[in-house]
Amino acid sequence: MQNLISSMLNGDRRSLSKLVSAIEHGNLDLNLLLNNIHDKTSDSYIIGVTGPPGSGKSTLVGNLINQLCEENLKIAFLAVDPTSPFGGGALLGDRIRVSDFNLSENVFIRSMGTRGSGGGLNGVVGITVDLFAAFGFDIVIVESVGVGQVDIDIMNISDTVILTTVPEAGDEIQILKRGLIEIADIFVVNKIDRPGSSHIANALEEEINSRGRDIDWIPPVILSQANKNIGIDLISEAIQKHKDFLKKSGGIVTKRGLNRDRQFISLVENNSVELIRKLLNSDEQIVQLRNKVKQGVINPYIAAFELNELIGLRKK
Amino acid sequence: MQNLISSMLNGDRRSLSKLVSAIEHGNLDLNLLLNNIHDKTSDSYIIGVTGPPGSGKSTLVGNLINQLCEENLKIAFLAVDPTSPFGGGALLGDRIRVSDFNLSENVFIRSMGTRGSGGGLNGVVGITVDLFAAFGFDIVIVESVGVGQVDIDIMNISDTVILTTVPEAGDEIQILKRGLIEIADIFVVNKIDRPGSSHIANALEEEINSRGRDIDWIPPVILSQANKNIGIDLISEAIQKHKDFLKKSGGIVTKRGLNRDRQFISLVENNSVELIRKLLNSDEQIVQLRNKVKQGVINPYIAAFELNELIGLRKK
Repeated sequence: MQNLISSMLNGDRRSLSKLVSAIEHGNLDLNLLLNNIHDKTSDSYIIGVTGPPGSGKSTLVGNLINQLCEENLKIAFLAVDPTSPFGGGALLGDRIRVSDFNLSENVFIRSMGTRGSGGGLNGVVGITVDLFAAFGFDIVIVESVGVGQVDIDIMNISDTVILTTVPEAGDEIQILKRGLIEIADIFVVNKIDRPGSSHIANALEEEINSRGRDIDWIPPVILSQANKNIGIDLISEAIQKHKDFLKKSGGIVTKRGLNRDRQFISLVENNSVELIRKLLNSDEQIVQLRNKVKQGVINPYIAAFELNELIGLRKK
Repeated sequence: MQNLISSMLNGDRRSLSKLVSAIEHGNLDLNLLLNNIHDKTSDSYIIGVTGPPGSGKSTLVGNLINQLCEENLKIAFLAVDPTSPFGGGALLGDRIRVSDFNLSENVFIRSMGTRGSGGGLNGVVGITVDLFAAFGFDIVIVESVGVGQVDIDIMNISDTVILTTVPEAGDEIQILKRGLIEIADIFVVNKIDRPGSSHIANALEEEINSRGRDIDWIPPVILSQANKNIGIDLISEAIQKHKDFLKKSGGIVTKRGLNRDRQFISLVENNSVELIRKLLNSDEQIVQLRNKVKQGVINPYIAAFELNELIGLRKK
């Protein structure tokens, strides 16, 4: 284990790959790993990409990686699949297209399921991102599907968050806006060859301008057609601008501090859920209560209130 | 409160509406409400509709409601917006188109945010669905966006789960499939005027056929174009078939029992997360630990391990 970590820190990609698998499957000494990489992670810049299925995130990220490679940056990419127990490579190979040269020299690509150990998604993904940072990648890109907790966890580890959407999302963009406008740093309307793109871009910009924000960064709305490589340069520029903004304003220190706190809270919450699940399956009195719920004798909400009286979370 | 419940049970829609608001805002005696409606909820049939943003769920549900009204059914529709603190009606009015006559006589429509009290989404939505059932609606339809926890909660209260997707989801359908194929009872590929619909429908059918299932129901894959009312009759038929299947096989009893158990577990988990959040903000020792995490002195994962040693969840 110590050998693996040392050779990873010396730049061995195979050791890196083995460590990612070990993190995903939960079979390694996390404390040892984290203590070895903790002070080596601050130089990487973390980009989170999220958006609904079908919004072209993977094509966009593939082209973005090729663009960033031209700037001589070394890039790690992690695709998070919240519904899969483990990642595997076949699917990802279909989704992301990066040149063979870049793939062998400058780019490291992995997909990852989220049911491994280490405190849920946040744990597994956060530790993997730290690992990539310690290896020395200039940029780590994390991509996930959906609008739920997974995305919030992605945001909690990212310096720049990119939200992709499509012209058709018009009728539901209100929902995206309200939930994510405070969190996304760059909005991308992809697939602009389809009708509705200027409508949705205007709606997003209106919403952005109507909101007060804690900091002075105004998220740009970028139009793209990723499969034709249109707009990718603008996305790359916007990332650089946001990075410069965070570094000049000192916002990066605040943001990373808040991110670490949010990761911590999410991990602790996951741990408490794991504890309660064990209790729900092992305690005889609780199993009896569950049977009454199943049979419809007692309402689930009333039973949950009752259980609240039975158990508690407290300091030792 | 008792008066409101009584007049709701006597069929007063205004009382129903007031009770939904009270549930959403968490300002009512839930025990009193639940005890009053607990034995009156079994006759309604619950349909959950989920799928990514832009897949046309709202248009589809609007037309499905109009179709079901022709069969003289009384229908309640609840749109769940996982990113909004509270629902409000303006947005929903734009999304769902139901005739004025149906709206005044046979259909009750509400949207709901999910940050109210009552144990997170599951609590608020589950109680509202019970309320609709007690009022006497034949069918309750619950719709939500996304692929995350919200959808799993929706599935936990539904007799029939419909998953909508679009032809373009091709490259990400693997993800949907793996996560949801066990849970969805009916698949709808909507917007079939766009390319890729037969490809995605075939891929779904292959996946369905390649899986062993616990029960004998084989989920149909229906092609639709909701904005032209194409395929809505097939969806309505498939719902009826699934309902008949569940009733004839006795599966409805098992399914509702499992659903109640899953609701219970989800509520208890939410309660434990609420407890831990309070502790994280109030305990001096933990606040100090969080400050060290924010400053980067201690890694979030190591801090979470440490906290695990400090606190525990146990029976009183």
